[in-house]
Amino acid sequence: MSKTIDFQTDPSKYRHWRVAYDGDVANLYMDVDQDGGLFDGYQLKLNSYDLGVDIELADVVQRMRFEHPEIKVVVMRSGKENVFCAGANIRMLGGASHAHKVNFCKFTNETRNTFEAAEEDSGQKYICAVKGACAGGGYELALACNYIMLTDDSTSAVALPEVPLLAVLPGTGGLTRVTDKRKVRRDRADIFCSIEEGVKGQRAQDWDLVDEVIPNSKFDETVDERAREFASASQKATGNGIKLDPLDRKIGDDGSIVYSLVEVDLDRAAHKVTITLKGPDSEAPATIEDLEALGDQSYLLRLARELDDAILHLRSNEKELGLVVFRTQGDGSAVLAHEKQLSENADHWLAKEILAYWKRVLKRIDVTSRSLVALVEHGSCFAGVLAEILWAVDRSYMMDGEFEGDNRPMAAIQPSAANFGRFPMGNDLTRLETRFLGAPEAIETIKAKTGTSIEAEDADKLGLVTVILDDIDWEDEIRIFMEERASFSPDAMTGMEANLRFAGPETMETRIFGRLTAWQNWIFNRPNATGEDGALQRYGTGIRGNYNIERV
Amino acid sequence: MSKTIDFQTDPSKYRHWRVAYDGDVANLYMDVDQDGGLFDGYQLKLNSYDLGVDIELADVVQRMRFEHPEIKVVVMRSGKENVFCAGANIRMLGGASHAHKVNFCKFTNETRNTFEAAEEDSGQKYICAVKGACAGGGYELALACNYIMLTDDSTSAVALPEVPLLAVLPGTGGLTRVTDKRKVRRDRADIFCSIEEGVKGQRAQDWDLVDEVIPNSKFDETVDERAREFASASQKATGNGIKLDPLDRKIGDDGSIVYSLVEVDLDRAAHKVTITLKGPDSEAPATIEDLEALGDQSYLLRLARELDDAILHLRSNEKELGLVVFRTQGDGSAVLAHEKQLSENADHWLAKEILAYWKRVLKRIDVTSRSLVALVEHGSCFAGVLAEILWAVDRSYMMDGEFEGDNRPMAAIQPSAANFGRFPMGNDLTRLETRFLGAPEAIETIKAKTGTSIEAEDADKLGLVTVILDDIDWEDEIRIFMEERASFSPDAMTGMEANLRFAGPETMETRIFGRLTAWQNWIFNRPNATGEDGALQRYGTGIRGNYNIERV
Repeated sequence: MSKTIDFQTDPSKYRHWRVAYDGDVANLYMDVDQDGGLFDGYQLKLNSYDLGVDIELADVVQRMRFEHPEIKVVVMRSGKENVFCAGANIRMLGGASHAHKVNFCKFTNETRNTFEAAEEDSGQKYICAVKGACAGGGYELALACNYIMLTDDSTSAVALPEVPLLAVLPGTGGLTRVTDKRKVRRDRADIFCSIEEGVKGQRAQDWDLVDEVIPNSKFDETVDERAREFASASQKATGNGIKLDPLDRKIGDDGSIVYSLVEVDLDRAAHKVTITLKGPDSEAPATIEDLEALGDQSYLLRLARELDDAILHLRSNEKELGLVVFRTQGDGSAVLAHEKQLSENADHWLAKEILAYWKRVLKRIDVTSRSLVALVEHGSCFAGVLAEILWAVDRSYMMDGEFEGDNRPMAAIQPSAANFGRFPMGNDLTRLETRFLGAPEAIETIKAKTGTSIEAEDADKLGLVTVILDDIDWEDEIRIFMEERASFSPDAMTGMEANLRFAGPETMETRIFGRLTAWQNWIFNRPNATGEDGALQRYGTGIRGNYNIERV
Repeated sequence: MSKTIDFQTDPSKYRHWRVAYDGDVANLYMDVDQDGGLFDGYQLKLNSYDLGVDIELADVVQRMRFEHPEIKVVVMRSGKENVFCAGANIRMLGGASHAHKVNFCKFTNETRNTFEAAEEDSGQKYICAVKGACAGGGYELALACNYIMLTDDSTSAVALPEVPLLAVLPGTGGLTRVTDKRKVRRDRADIFCSIEEGVKGQRAQDWDLVDEVIPNSKFDETVDERAREFASASQKATGNGIKLDPLDRKIGDDGSIVYSLVEVDLDRAAHKVTITLKGPDSEAPATIEDLEALGDQSYLLRLARELDDAILHLRSNEKELGLVVFRTQGDGSAVLAHEKQLSENADHWLAKEILAYWKRVLKRIDVTSRSLVALVEHGSCFAGVLAEILWAVDRSYMMDGEFEGDNRPMAAIQPSAANFGRFPMGNDLTRLETRFLGAPEAIETIKAKTGTSIEAEDADKLGLVTVILDDIDWEDEIRIFMEERASFSPDAMTGMEANLRFAGPETMETRIFGRLTAWQNWIFNRPNATGEDGALQRYGTGIRGNYNIERV
């Protein structure tokens, strides 16, 4: 599985999903083309999915927000008879590398979190209409919807058969959402997760596995009715939508990428990639109508899309580059002007969506398994939303004082009001709150500096950066740090970073990326699951996995 | 490493720790006998430790509570020159099986949690006086103390060098306590956890890694002064202490164990162990003086000690028995009478300690990596504290109605006031709160039944048990369930149970056993750490680990 995975797609290329728009309701049909797998060696039978299917779903979900702001309710359905979704494709999992499995789970988790949060973030509610078997990742799709309807017939059931059948965990939030979102009683959850055939009919509702069980004869009309009810109760800000055109992206022979506002430079020898974000190339739109007219070309939307794509590309396609360095170059005040226009119009559908998208992109950075570093150089523009990157990374270095031969403006950080609540992390704290868990008063001091330019010495005192370095030390210190970092075990770094980045309270989201993911990673490494005689390899042969029964 | 590990010890057998009692202050010296390792093949140099060293420490901590209630402050110190503690022994880790490493980490975590909580639970405060290198597990010992003092000299430093040096995580809560207890800024934590040599002097205090840095010349006297200060500020309930004599324990040739109140029966063919807890064999003491006079023979203390030992024994020595079945037999009202005496005297040091010990034992059950089941049979005594077991296990089965030829009293559950707050789980909720996360009103209904006997049908309605079964179904249903359970992959079960048992909020404790442990388990399975060319194997050879640099 070494071919390059492209996270960009558009409806003209879809093979697995289709949408029927009906006023303020969208019917989203999962209808997987079994011959449309991303890799060879497996067929996507029974609406099972691989990363390619999920890339399309992520695209649907993203376009629903930007291209179809009129949609208030999305009904997730199956386009096939007798099956809703059989979950992640087992043969794909059986053949995939450990890294691919982990990346696959991470991306699918992010996509589920995105449509789950669409209701809270912009009033777009996903409901799930389950007809036919809904198993494993299929039920996890349903769990991430905020209302689950199940038809009452002899074959329709919800199930998490991973543990008994495959010796792995439900990998996209299933265990966490069962106990923490659906609040299924834990001993019932234990039964539910241990039976291959799942639970159907009234019991599914009694156990809180679904919200509503409906006689088969009335199912379709009840789903339509419920969708219309939810839509008419919705307060969603609507509009005409904008078109998300293909990205302006050039990939060089060496793997480096040039977007309109983002540059990705690879240094394979040093196992390092540098992502440079450019400041605005245009003035902030004067009015919200101007913003709409710009469509996908407004600065902060374009930057978010390009950065998002770059991160996804690197995660899946450049796994040996363990160090990601963030730089910015441009006019910080111009960044703030663009951000201000969005913040001041945050009730407008498009401004709201762009800000919510940045929240998602920043979260994507938070859970990226790479050592993350930011360099605050002269001429940089870590202002407002871009300053969030400084507190998302593991460490930041800032130029202190004049540098010989460097006539760019002095390095400075510009906090904005948006840094104090607009972009919460998965733990529901802002990045500054997480950073200053032990010194909450520090946040007030920073707040008082909103809109000002903070140079190195003050940034250091305020705790905004990790290290400030002058002309003499800058190059050597950073080089030594990066060489050292590249010499550490990537696994240990991943484990360390996953623990240090999320201090403080936990949420369903941090539990999914922290606790659940870690256990799944462990299990993916155990012979009982992935060994030659493990359950994933033996699936479909009629022979059960041969287990080492020792408990650890 | 297949020899039987005994978790019982006493001061006459200590090889690694000694205590000097000084009024209400105890000085606890770590002075590891390098030739006293639990297994062959390594020397415990530089105050490094293995499970044997930790079993002694756990015994010290336990006796400090029961035998020395006069102690208000425990000062943890090194008995060696120039080194505080070098952490877990690397050669031991390098040679240990995956299961042993995981069990080792779990037990050391429990011991650290115990002395960390001693201040809140009974007013016994652990402080740490660090002289010399304090690295890895050594600093994790310090982190679990509630006040850390560091001498300011050229060699004394605190460090978590696991990631750069060994390609594993600090495995006993280090990462979690650094960010969540000490609230070290996350980028400073990143630096701290990446440098082998650690941090010393003023910087250690500035970064919140220690509470106080003291010039070497004044260190000893300042430590004594601080200990006296904390002791005089303490409101701890004190007394004369009781002696914890060796357990009444007989281990049979087949591995079964008979204690005075606990029986452990093994069924190796079925991979199952049955733990039967007996009801009181004597009346509840009439007065608190009577309780003190009984010493370690009072019912609930004896039962807790025996159950605790049984669980620890099974975890380490019977790893192929994946299913643990809890039974009780006896008079539930008598259990409640014993519990009531403790609850009514909860301000008395001994009653408080026995109740706090039950909190710990029940938490030990919560984090035990076995499928846990309770059988509520006729004649059983799941009352008050023993009923907690019903909500700690993954599933419970209860006899419903008369059973042919069975003339024991009808199966019944007796909740007591203690079930509503006396024994919180690691997530700081009661087991009933965790169980009824989705239906908090259910708890009020159960509360109204306090002190009554609830038979099967009502227990089912109230949600106190998973399944009720009559005479016709009891045997077959349970047999089928147990056979099925034993056929699943132990790893998947462990991951599933670790996720389902702890719904709701997270605490430092759940993060340590959940998130941190899971990442460590994963890393312990990765060749970069434990492979032939991994860091653990190569440690001490002068050659670094040879890493696969792919990030997953």
